[in-house]
Amino acid sequence: MKHDLPTLTLRQDCANALRMLAVDAVQAAHSGHPGMPMGMADIAEALWRHHLRHDPADPAWPDRDRFVLSNGHGSMLLYALLHLSGYELPMAELRRFRQLHGKTPGHPEVGVTPGVETTTGPLGQGIANAVGMALAEKLLADEFNRPGHTVVDHRTYAFLGDGCLMEGISHEACSLAGTWRLNKLVAFYDDNGISIDGAVSGWFTDDTPGRFEAYGWTVLRGVDGHDFDALDRAIAAAQAADRPVLVCCRTTIGKGSPNRAGTAKVHGEALGAEEIALTRAALGWTAAPFEVPEPLRQAWSAHERGAALNAAWRQRMAAYALAYPDLARELLRRQDRSTPLTAETEEALAQACARAEARAAAVATRKASQDVLQELGPATPELLGGSADLTGSNLTDWTGHRALKGSGTGNHVHYGVREFGMAAIMNGVALHGGYRPFGGTFLAFSDYARNAVRMAALMRLPVVHVYTHDSIGLGEDGPTHQPVEHASSLRLIPGVDVWRPADATETAVAWREAMRRLDGPSCLLLSRQALPHAGDGRPRLDAIARGAYVLRRPEGERVALLASGSEVGLALAAAAKLAEAGVPARVVSVPCLERFERQDAAWRHEVIPRHLPRLAVEAGRSGLWWKYVGEDGDVVGLDRFGESAPAPELFQLFGLTAEAVAARALALLG
Amino acid sequence: MKHDLPTLTLRQDCANALRMLAVDAVQAAHSGHPGMPMGMADIAEALWRHHLRHDPADPAWPDRDRFVLSNGHGSMLLYALLHLSGYELPMAELRRFRQLHGKTPGHPEVGVTPGVETTTGPLGQGIANAVGMALAEKLLADEFNRPGHTVVDHRTYAFLGDGCLMEGISHEACSLAGTWRLNKLVAFYDDNGISIDGAVSGWFTDDTPGRFEAYGWTVLRGVDGHDFDALDRAIAAAQAADRPVLVCCRTTIGKGSPNRAGTAKVHGEALGAEEIALTRAALGWTAAPFEVPEPLRQAWSAHERGAALNAAWRQRMAAYALAYPDLARELLRRQDRSTPLTAETEEALAQACARAEARAAAVATRKASQDVLQELGPATPELLGGSADLTGSNLTDWTGHRALKGSGTGNHVHYGVREFGMAAIMNGVALHGGYRPFGGTFLAFSDYARNAVRMAALMRLPVVHVYTHDSIGLGEDGPTHQPVEHASSLRLIPGVDVWRPADATETAVAWREAMRRLDGPSCLLLSRQALPHAGDGRPRLDAIARGAYVLRRPEGERVALLASGSEVGLALAAAAKLAEAGVPARVVSVPCLERFERQDAAWRHEVIPRHLPRLAVEAGRSGLWWKYVGEDGDVVGLDRFGESAPAPELFQLFGLTAEAVAARALALLG
Repeated sequence: MKHDLPTLTLRQDCANALRMLAVDAVQAAHSGHPGMPMGMADIAEALWRHHLRHDPADPAWPDRDRFVLSNGHGSMLLYALLHLSGYELPMAELRRFRQLHGKTPGHPEVGVTPGVETTTGPLGQGIANAVGMALAEKLLADEFNRPGHTVVDHRTYAFLGDGCLMEGISHEACSLAGTWRLNKLVAFYDDNGISIDGAVSGWFTDDTPGRFEAYGWTVLRGVDGHDFDALDRAIAAAQAADRPVLVCCRTTIGKGSPNRAGTAKVHGEALGAEEIALTRAALGWTAAPFEVPEPLRQAWSAHERGAALNAAWRQRMAAYALAYPDLARELLRRQDRSTPLTAETEEALAQACARAEARAAAVATRKASQDVLQELGPATPELLGGSADLTGSNLTDWTGHRALKGSGTGNHVHYGVREFGMAAIMNGVALHGGYRPFGGTFLAFSDYARNAVRMAALMRLPVVHVYTHDSIGLGEDGPTHQPVEHASSLRLIPGVDVWRPADATETAVAWREAMRRLDGPSCLLLSRQALPHAGDGRPRLDAIARGAYVLRRPEGERVALLASGSEVGLALAAAAKLAEAGVPARVVSVPCLERFERQDAAWRHEVIPRHLPRLAVEAGRSGLWWKYVGEDGDVVGLDRFGESAPAPELFQLFGLTAEAVAARALALLG
Repeated sequence: MKHDLPTLTLRQDCANALRMLAVDAVQAAHSGHPGMPMGMADIAEALWRHHLRHDPADPAWPDRDRFVLSNGHGSMLLYALLHLSGYELPMAELRRFRQLHGKTPGHPEVGVTPGVETTTGPLGQGIANAVGMALAEKLLADEFNRPGHTVVDHRTYAFLGDGCLMEGISHEACSLAGTWRLNKLVAFYDDNGISIDGAVSGWFTDDTPGRFEAYGWTVLRGVDGHDFDALDRAIAAAQAADRPVLVCCRTTIGKGSPNRAGTAKVHGEALGAEEIALTRAALGWTAAPFEVPEPLRQAWSAHERGAALNAAWRQRMAAYALAYPDLARELLRRQDRSTPLTAETEEALAQACARAEARAAAVATRKASQDVLQELGPATPELLGGSADLTGSNLTDWTGHRALKGSGTGNHVHYGVREFGMAAIMNGVALHGGYRPFGGTFLAFSDYARNAVRMAALMRLPVVHVYTHDSIGLGEDGPTHQPVEHASSLRLIPGVDVWRPADATETAVAWREAMRRLDGPSCLLLSRQALPHAGDGRPRLDAIARGAYVLRRPEGERVALLASGSEVGLALAAAAKLAEAGVPARVVSVPCLERFERQDAAWRHEVIPRHLPRLAVEAGRSGLWWKYVGEDGDVVGLDRFGESAPAPELFQLFGLTAEAVAARALALLG
């Protein structure tokens, strides 16, 4: 169908309001993506005007339905929906689509626009976030609802396109959604047959319904994405399903544009004045750009319905608070993402720190991390741990944890071998609220999850990644498993705190700081092998938290050794050798460069003084260390891939020994 | 079945030889993975002794079948197979499993062990490599075979496990294999129901056969992986299929171990002396560790069959060479991965370089790259381009290219929105030989593919990644699409050459150097926006190839500005302002730090002199630049996420203007 007749029903006009706002905003910005909003406008009308339970006056209402635009390039659809529904997103913002400091950025960004639930654009991650949100809802409902008191009861809806479905992460996340039987997750597939390169038949021939049935989803096939009645029926069926639901909607990309509908050209560029005029005519749309006729405004407003839904929930909460005052208090605390840790959690972390320092034992930091979890887990009901099928290696579980498997519940998730899916699901859990997620894998495979770590940083989500087997110290598994560049490459992502603790005490402090951090992700890089205790009895817990601190400061110091993680012990041993050689050496432990960079200049210069020759030691890429040692300094690093052999032989091979480090330090002195 | 009786048939004994070599080698190493080799030994016997066409005396025989162990942790299975088949892998190497400088590393590594086709371990990538190999075979067969002359005709076999199938990349690669109808690809799924965390039923409930049927594969369901006859029938059926084939083999992990078979414990640790003794008894295996009875050695040897297959192929090649001498010569050239570029390709690159320099035009470097391809493509039949559904944005195609879509052939691949799959498939193509693959996506989404770029570096594969939209210069799409850390984080992967050219000429040289490089991957980081010509007429092509060079050296220079890519133009403009202020500034263009690091010290110190105050400018993370400016220098970088706005406003916002750079340079002078 090349040409649509002008439409007349209210629902069609409501959908066309979305279309024209998208068309006009993209035109004004001279950039953006009109095709998807035009194609999904009817689905959006059906969902948002008739089914979505939300309150524009209270975007943070905890029991609202979540909506995720996984095909985030269609951001104007979401902005139009938010504006028309009544969120605090005035038309002036739609006019400023994609402009500096606006509330309508090119792709939806949580925290920027009221009502946007997650930042999307990198394809496939939105649907994974949605899986995380639905998981959090399920767990929270299981934990807090009581007979006659249903205070957690909302759905997660997602829009997604061919791009999301081609991405591997959609496999990981949707497979888990099926296993977990997340029946309150409903995804609408915009099956328009077009991606940027053209008709998808050349590169995407999956039987997608069959694929999702293989995941254990309920699939509603062949829904006409432009038939409101069919959409209503599908949504009703989806709400009744006992599995996650994929609603496969046949749509026309750019629907409404006489010459561009159904083409790749409409995907990502403005229609242009001429085609816009034709589109207006085709849709019978006579309002000026950025004008919406009052009857449509009224029809779109979700204020009244939203206020009623919200009020009804508040009534249920009031009754719940009478019946279960402790639970109600806890639920409110948990749903507020800005609430600091409880006294119990703080006490557990303090215990863990004190105990590690007092024991002064040589222990693998992955084991030290588990020791922390042993305190933290029981004291922190919001903790939601997990591992990508390496639980016994990452040591992310603790005695008394409840394993989440299959369709059950729990507080430690077996994510399977799905690093990227895990990380993006964790982001969704954090966005939903109610839980503090952490997850483990080998540091080398942080690569697989990298963009989700980046998204956590961009969204300022307090997730924790437990990355064990953090260097050539893992030994025999060889270079595919040995991180060399990963510590530094994680440090490069803005907003991530990368901790590489030297011993059990630093591990405990890293956990404490990661848990206290409410505005961004933390990565804990942990050793497979035992590391010696680094402290000398002087208090250091708060110094550790500052990211770098002086561990040894001998009289007459002539050189400074900077090190992180497993190389701190090496630096201490090298300093001992240097002392024998009559060269007192300062040893600086650097568990977290990002923390250190946030300290005042006085601390930084006090800890890493410019007047001393400096040598940095880290079993990884050297590049980032030159900032701290200067060009007269030196770095003992590892600027090549590792080898498969027992770890001690590798440290020897690569010059990461006390002797070699001492020699390099001496060479600095000329 | 907890306990196996001693077996008696030759085939069982042959399989048990694999089992016991794996068991004994893991025991000797005190580390490794016996479970998979024991579970897949019977499948391996069926495939390798009866179907695989290979020649142990000639591991590089171009028409050999390819074998990929995607579940690479089962490396001892492959080493046992190679040893017993007769590859140059003596028993002494099996005894030294996982030891330094051995030929039997923890995970299979191509180039280390004769007969290993690809490096595996990071799960899911092996099967993607296999898809790339099968694609290369199909394309090469299409290009070179002639009626009556079938000189390219081999299969690609892969073993994979639950882990590979959970990983998202298996979705991307296997979806494409179905679309491409790669009927010579046969994958054996080790369906043992166990992964590291235990029974997979808790986290992996996919109907995997259904999933692969949804991809358009032929699926052989429910094959008993311990029944030789069933396996033979399955392999015969697989060879007759007109689609890629998944052979679903029900197996018992650790089969043969009385107490550990069927458990997660047997996956990744040595059995221990006691259980090994029980296993020997259960299998009726009386030979000492690392001893294989002579009848079994003879039964395993593939020398005779391999030599005959190879000789027959050589005969076919001889006949082919008579009938099609030019084609035969070309085929031999193409199959030799160490052959340098042809004169035609060199000439095309020289033309592209000269033309760009002569035109001296302001052009987006992504467009400049396409201009190079316009010369390179027609002159280079081995070039296999592609894009992850961004062809028109990455500009990876050229006039006259042939688009590979669906089940057809071509020299530019529409990979769909599958960045990781694309990169790992490219690795497989490069491993197979016959083609030089390159592929495009946005630089921000190099994250998705990161571990495959790493694997290319580890394997020293000459693949080229075209990463466009390389900074905040992409503007309105916003922070999800704006690379900030990516240039530096790619530089951190050992062995990758990261080019960030400043103009069309540097882009052409980057392509020339990337194509000339036969021992590792290159990334070309290209701008969306136009960049001014940076040259001043003096010859610079060879200087560019050295990674950094002096672009302007005014009399009386007092400060040096170092810059890459789009910031070179900025540095030139800043230098002009500084000149007005009476401060002559050297401008150094740094298109490739890795190349620069490989130059001799004289060049390095000549280009970036320590005697001048230095300021580096790059619209990305600053960390790696401190090595080159020293702690008295400065870096104008971008150490936060970007914003959604027109690009010029962003450069202004983040202080990336000529005025701001000039001011920072002046500040350096005190």
